[in-house]
Amino acid sequence: MKKAKILVLNGPNLNLLGIRDTKLYGQKTLEYINNILKREAENLNFEISFFQSNCEGQIIDKIHEAYGVYRGIIINPGAYTHYSIAIRDAIASVEIPTVEVHLSNIYNREEFRTKSVIAPVCVGQISGFKEYGYILALFALHEMLNRRYENE
Amino acid sequence: MKKAKILVLNGPNLNLLGIRDTKLYGQKTLEYINNILKREAENLNFEISFFQSNCEGQIIDKIHEAYGVYRGIIINPGAYTHYSIAIRDAIASVEIPTVEVHLSNIYNREEFRTKSVIAPVCVGQISGFKEYGYILALFALHEMLNRRYENE
Amino acid sequence: MKKAKILVLNGPNLNLLGIRDTKLYGQKTLEYINNILKREAENLNFEISFFQSNCEGQIIDKIHEAYGVYRGIIINPGAYTHYSIAIRDAIASVEIPTVEVHLSNIYNREEFRTKSVIAPVCVGQISGFKEYGYILALFALHEMLNRRYENE
Amino acid sequence: MKKAKILVLNGPNLNLLGIRDTKLYGQKTLEYINNILKREAENLNFEISFFQSNCEGQIIDKIHEAYGVYRGIIINPGAYTHYSIAIRDAIASVEIPTVEVHLSNIYNREEFRTKSVIAPVCVGQISGFKEYGYILALFALHEMLNRRYENE
Amino acid sequence: MKKAKILVLNGPNLNLLGIRDTKLYGQKTLEYINNILKREAENLNFEISFFQSNCEGQIIDKIHEAYGVYRGIIINPGAYTHYSIAIRDAIASVEIPTVEVHLSNIYNREEFRTKSVIAPVCVGQISGFKEYGYILALFALHEMLNRRYENE
Amino acid sequence: MKKAKILVLNGPNLNLLGIRDTKLYGQKTLEYINNILKREAENLNFEISFFQSNCEGQIIDKIHEAYGVYRGIIINPGAYTHYSIAIRDAIASVEIPTVEVHLSNIYNREEFRTKSVIAPVCVGQISGFKEYGYILALFALHEMLNRRYENE
Amino acid sequence: MKKAKILVLNGPNLNLLGIRDTKLYGQKTLEYINNILKREAENLNFEISFFQSNCEGQIIDKIHEAYGVYRGIIINPGAYTHYSIAIRDAIASVEIPTVEVHLSNIYNREEFRTKSVIAPVCVGQISGFKEYGYILALFALHEMLNRRYENE
Amino acid sequence: MKKAKILVLNGPNLNLLGIRDTKLYGQKTLEYINNILKREAENLNFEISFFQSNCEGQIIDKIHEAYGVYRGIIINPGAYTHYSIAIRDAIASVEIPTVEVHLSNIYNREEFRTKSVIAPVCVGQISGFKEYGYILALFALHEMLNRRYENE
Amino acid sequence: MKKAKILVLNGPNLNLLGIRDTKLYGQKTLEYINNILKREAENLNFEISFFQSNCEGQIIDKIHEAYGVYRGIIINPGAYTHYSIAIRDAIASVEIPTVEVHLSNIYNREEFRTKSVIAPVCVGQISGFKEYGYILALFALHEMLNRRYENE
Amino acid sequence: MKKAKILVLNGPNLNLLGIRDTKLYGQKTLEYINNILKREAENLNFEISFFQSNCEGQIIDKIHEAYGVYRGIIINPGAYTHYSIAIRDAIASVEIPTVEVHLSNIYNREEFRTKSVIAPVCVGQISGFKEYGYILALFALHEMLNRRYENE
Amino acid sequence: MKKAKILVLNGPNLNLLGIRDTKLYGQKTLEYINNILKREAENLNFEISFFQSNCEGQIIDKIHEAYGVYRGIIINPGAYTHYSIAIRDAIASVEIPTVEVHLSNIYNREEFRTKSVIAPVCVGQISGFKEYGYILALFALHEMLNRRYENE
Amino acid sequence: MKKAKILVLNGPNLNLLGIRDTKLYGQKTLEYINNILKREAENLNFEISFFQSNCEGQIIDKIHEAYGVYRGIIINPGAYTHYSIAIRDAIASVEIPTVEVHLSNIYNREEFRTKSVIAPVCVGQISGFKEYGYILALFALHEMLNRRYENE
Repeated sequence: MKKAKILVLNGPNLNLLGIRDTKLYGQKTLEYINNILKREAENLNFEISFFQSNCEGQIIDKIHEAYGVYRGIIINPGAYTHYSIAIRDAIASVEIPTVEVHLSNIYNREEFRTKSVIAPVCVGQISGFKEYGYILALFALHEMLNRRYENE
Repeated sequence: MKKAKILVLNGPNLNLLGIRDTKLYGQKTLEYINNILKREAENLNFEISFFQSNCEGQIIDKIHEAYGVYRGIIINPGAYTHYSIAIRDAIASVEIPTVEVHLSNIYNREEFRTKSVIAPVCVGQISGFKEYGYILALFALHEMLNRRYENE
Repeated sequence: MKKAKILVLNGPNLNLLGIRDTKLYGQKTLEYINNILKREAENLNFEISFFQSNCEGQIIDKIHEAYGVYRGIIINPGAYTHYSIAIRDAIASVEIPTVEVHLSNIYNREEFRTKSVIAPVCVGQISGFKEYGYILALFALHEMLNRRYENE
Repeated sequence: MKKAKILVLNGPNLNLLGIRDTKLYGQKTLEYINNILKREAENLNFEISFFQSNCEGQIIDKIHEAYGVYRGIIINPGAYTHYSIAIRDAIASVEIPTVEVHLSNIYNREEFRTKSVIAPVCVGQISGFKEYGYILALFALHEMLNRRYENE
Repeated sequence: MKKAKILVLNGPNLNLLGIRDTKLYGQKTLEYINNILKREAENLNFEISFFQSNCEGQIIDKIHEAYGVYRGIIINPGAYTHYSIAIRDAIASVEIPTVEVHLSNIYNREEFRTKSVIAPVCVGQISGFKEYGYILALFALHEMLNRRYENE
Repeated sequence: MKKAKILVLNGPNLNLLGIRDTKLYGQKTLEYINNILKREAENLNFEISFFQSNCEGQIIDKIHEAYGVYRGIIINPGAYTHYSIAIRDAIASVEIPTVEVHLSNIYNREEFRTKSVIAPVCVGQISGFKEYGYILALFALHEMLNRRYENE
Repeated sequence: MKKAKILVLNGPNLNLLGIRDTKLYGQKTLEYINNILKREAENLNFEISFFQSNCEGQIIDKIHEAYGVYRGIIINPGAYTHYSIAIRDAIASVEIPTVEVHLSNIYNREEFRTKSVIAPVCVGQISGFKEYGYILALFALHEMLNRRYENE
Repeated sequence: MKKAKILVLNGPNLNLLGIRDTKLYGQKTLEYINNILKREAENLNFEISFFQSNCEGQIIDKIHEAYGVYRGIIINPGAYTHYSIAIRDAIASVEIPTVEVHLSNIYNREEFRTKSVIAPVCVGQISGFKEYGYILALFALHEMLNRRYENE
Repeated sequence: MKKAKILVLNGPNLNLLGIRDTKLYGQKTLEYINNILKREAENLNFEISFFQSNCEGQIIDKIHEAYGVYRGIIINPGAYTHYSIAIRDAIASVEIPTVEVHLSNIYNREEFRTKSVIAPVCVGQISGFKEYGYILALFALHEMLNRRYENE
Repeated sequence: MKKAKILVLNGPNLNLLGIRDTKLYGQKTLEYINNILKREAENLNFEISFFQSNCEGQIIDKIHEAYGVYRGIIINPGAYTHYSIAIRDAIASVEIPTVEVHLSNIYNREEFRTKSVIAPVCVGQISGFKEYGYILALFALHEMLNRRYENE
Repeated sequence: MKKAKILVLNGPNLNLLGIRDTKLYGQKTLEYINNILKREAENLNFEISFFQSNCEGQIIDKIHEAYGVYRGIIINPGAYTHYSIAIRDAIASVEIPTVEVHLSNIYNREEFRTKSVIAPVCVGQISGFKEYGYILALFALHEMLNRRYENE
Repeated sequence: MKKAKILVLNGPNLNLLGIRDTKLYGQKTLEYINNILKREAENLNFEISFFQSNCEGQIIDKIHEAYGVYRGIIINPGAYTHYSIAIRDAIASVEIPTVEVHLSNIYNREEFRTKSVIAPVCVGQISGFKEYGYILALFALHEMLNRRYENE
């Protein structure tokens, strides 16, 4: 049987993880996070791909390409979380179940970071669990696609 | 070795799960959710307790009692999410790592539901994954207490 | 034929009616109001019950208990009108036709009293007719359950 | 003894009742509503008159004419509810007890419909009971003018 | 030499002056105010006309008719002060020097009365001097048309 | 075959076109605009009627009369654009496809002119093309009624 | 008979009149204005004094000194109009009838100039008539102290 | 002579004093505070009682019970300060002089803590003096009941 | 004679037209729209070019390239409508007459879609006529460049 | 041992105490208040000085002079409470423990009086106890400097 | 050739520089800053004067005196930056090129410090470079008066 | 000794300098500005590089590349100033001292241009000095890196 494909999208500045303010975001690099995601994806029988860009337009392009190919998206939109209605519309367009992830708890930082324009078109949001948030998002997509608990 | 104790708190109207608007919240009862949480808790070597109340004061009392006893709290504050600064202060007081869970995606409902006064004092927030959100919260607490990924 | 059951709920401080600021709320006690409601209920062939509490949680509990038992609710939520999203959710959950009543005209008092978070889930709102507002609410429920005018 | 005179005022678009969005406003025409009001008015020993206009100025003129003639006014100001300070001032000027009526529950519609500039100068407001709201308003005026319950 | 013509416009409810809340607006009727204005106008060699309407549209019509005929307008827009952008546009269109008058001091009443949408297109505003405010407006127009002080 | 009937409504102050601030609105009179509309309407096989009023109520009356008679409405609500919820409700009531037109670009003028309370119930809005905006509206209605492009 | 004493207060930057932006404020100096005020005051049998200061505290001191000495105050608070609650309180304290004057029409300038914190404690406000506004204020005080029209 | 009775009410989380964030609230327990209050009360010839609850409803009940029994109330409403209109109404109802106390200076913490919905119905508010604030409140009530300074 | 060149710009997600939510945007692809635009352009003797990008920067680059080359721009900025001040500044910089087009009526969707930061620098805006809106924009540019009606 | 020096600062209009609105502020003059403060200061072994000014700048100068001389400041900033960021910065600069006092309860007056820009840099605030508030402030400073309760 | 005169104005609390919070403002006194400014002024062939006051009125007086004497002003308005419309008007009146300087970066401090009411009438603003900001302002004035780069 | 490297970043539309609205931005091209910057940089012993892009993502990429290479950044973010939280985060991430420059005084233009989301993470901001602002920024960086004045 063919594995379900999952796309992991990281937005602006997330390529600097492990370099940037480590008190807030932890000391793990994006490469490290992708590696542990890959390992967990294999356990869950997912095929997983990664994409990071600082450019809003490239992220939108990637979401469009996902249409008809991927079964789920994990996205950490970085700062675009707070204003990119264009990314929001892209996610809404392709109708692929999408999970929004934030490394830090965006609700105890600056006021402007508590508002996500993207969350309303996602399945759900996971915020504050550092790199483990991506893993939780993977579990969430796995449950959504297999509905183990729902069909119990 | 002694098991770490986890407390699961559910706020107002969550006792009606499975009765109440099932399109929004799924068809599982609170009892069902507690059962699957219990099973997962055993897998993770947690000792788990449950408490539901429609009364803000009783929820605060329970959080106080958790002090020095529990290693983690999973809370779905229901409607109190949006105004109970008293519950917020209780969580901040006892300094037990707390995960906020919402069954529905609170970011695509009424405007007033997108604001949580409790999130800023929690470790993180998980929203939109129905009953599975509680399980994800359990995983998150497990990771926090054991830091498997962080110490890798 | 079995009488339809109606529940009358009064929120915080309404137990003080007739004691409290009588210029604003009239000089009738809650007991007096309940008595005239009882008399009118008999005329309309309703079975009527009364409950007052200063505790948000107890009001929610009572609304839950009404589920499957009562055909209509008359509620004066007192100060909870303006912030108890928890009571709002309780009313929405049990799906019993509910009429919101206020003794005073809440629209010519302090600005914060003009906003009801509960009204959107009620059938309608009656404000400003002192104790007679409860009677009007009773008539409204009677019409709703019998639809005399609608079926004319 | 001379019958007390009551004036029923309907604002813009209410002449279209029964034509206009029937899901929201019910299927009864204004003529039907006026007829049932007339019948109830007779029961209550009221003499009742009706006036509908789409013109703010004509409604104000009518309120002025009511001065010294009518003992009570029932007004459904339609869309003028939300901005006609001129109608508000007219009602305040003539000092006739006035009841504001809305067919639909204005508190579960668009945000801008939840604000009445007229309510602060009325005795009270009745919202959400369709055509029966007018009858309730009639009862309310009857009680106000006779104070059966207050003098009990 | 031909007398300059001045138009005095009064908006909604001002026909009730002397009847309406006399504590706020004084005890003089509109007829009385017009008479004293007429007398002062004669002293100033003005020809003066009067118009009152409760209808926004008729006030606009009258302003249009003033075009090319009147040299100055005194307007008390009543409640339309606060929302009639249509009257504002009418005044701006005809380009006749216009003075806005209010009997009461609109700045110590309800918050919503402190905002005039009409003032920005008038020459000036006079507020709080009861019936004498109209006389002051007449003096102001006289000065504007003759510029006694400016050319000194 | 019977021609489809189109109603062109112009609101307050538009009778002054060509007189009023010509830098903003162009130098064409309303009569001129109606004439070119008439000529284009003939080309499109429409029967076209015109109505202008400064009175909100008369505009509403006209919209009501259009019910069952006209196939499309072109409306320039003038200043009523920004506050006449009553005209909005009238348009929504009669369910005739309506196009909102503005001579000037309302988005580069005063802040308060950028908000239309009427646009949400129209098919669409055309703003900024001076008198030609009405012609575009006519084309738009023609396309809507014939769906040339949609059915291609 | 002793002449009534009137105090004319000018706030910050008004000493620069005739120097400062002459398009907005006219080309008359403060000295010129005071001279024409003096002449008119004599006609009205007033004794008039003048005070200008750029210092909020000195203006307050002067208002205090006026207590029990002056029968009326004319004040152009300049920029203090918009924030000096201290001057507002001073005026309210001494309970001398005070008229607020502005040379320019403060309602067609920057948004922040449309708000006067001082107007609510004045008898009235006169805005937009350049230097003649002070004369109008003098007339207004004269009428207030003599009530010619009111007692007619 | 009978001693005047004073009631000391503490709201949610105040039972945790000395445990909770000691940098902000000091290191004294509620028991300690009550003891020093008791001692000072004796000096002032007051009879003093204490009540703490995390439940809004119980605090309201206690205020009701105070009616006709206590001569003064000292209340630290904790987090309820910021939203419990129900407690506000309770205090207003019983008309017992009430002093609001806060341990910390609520004006240099989070923005939402600077707003007290309860202060408007209290005699006064004392904020920022840690446990000593309660003593100051006691002194304030003593002065109010004896008016030593006022009658000097 | 050389044909006037027109540039058609489409912003983010518009490449998905006909795939994306077809209830809102119609079932026509962007290719289809471009084809009908091309055909109409030929009728109007325009030379027309097309560009779509999901990247804000590329759209700005394209606008810059248009400088001195194109006589008119038709732009549907997609989600950038609501926040791209950079695109706004680009349009203002090149001073080419620009028409803003929206497929859907942006005034009856989410509140945040009703605000265009780009409209103030365009000639006009056309919203709600689906693919036909582009044709109307073409007509509008044609009229602007030829001023048939204006010079009549 | 040298006595600790305390500075009492009173802002604008407080020199009028006992003259000004006595219903709100009591009937005691500032001199009376200073006298009772002097007497209490002696009891507490404080050396006390007084300063009142209507001028923001002089109050700031006085605060600067207090640096290194005074051990505590009691300030009633009058109307400057609500906007003098300059006084706020002065207090913050000299780092002398400062207590803000208000005679009236500033929380049940006009909305704009409920906001203190000065409170965040003070130790605490005492509001509503008339002249006795200054005495309470003196006690508070005494406790702060001696920490009787804290060191118990 | 006569040297151009430059005036350096410092507002409230800046006399405390080097004493006040040195982490935020640096450890240099105002005297030190003035000395380095003097030295740089000589290099630039400027004659430089200094003035500091805590009094808004004195700062305005000084600006007035600068009229016709000084060629440029450097102002650090301290806390008056955020509310002194009077100083703003003074600067606008004298029409001397003025540069606003702030020692700290006012954009990463409290929200209320990010708003300057004075900046709109200055040539420009320099913020965040500690004492060196004054030197930069001097360079800026030098360039403005000599336009070396502009005329290149 | 190795020269310190400085990066000059220009955001959207700044490539059009000298073409675009020259009244607002001056008549110098970006090339001209870069040339004078280069010359001044040599005087200051800086090595200077230039980058301009209309693409948010490319600007972020460039900032990332600067990490560990450049000692200072001068950025004119153009329109991104007002919404690019992504550029803000990039600057904060690389922790290179950054100076924000604006050619025009952004505080006397449209309201939305007065808010910079980037300023809080910069060392300081220089606004309003046209092309000379970049030179000032260079001086500021030079001072910061050499601290001539600070170490004096």
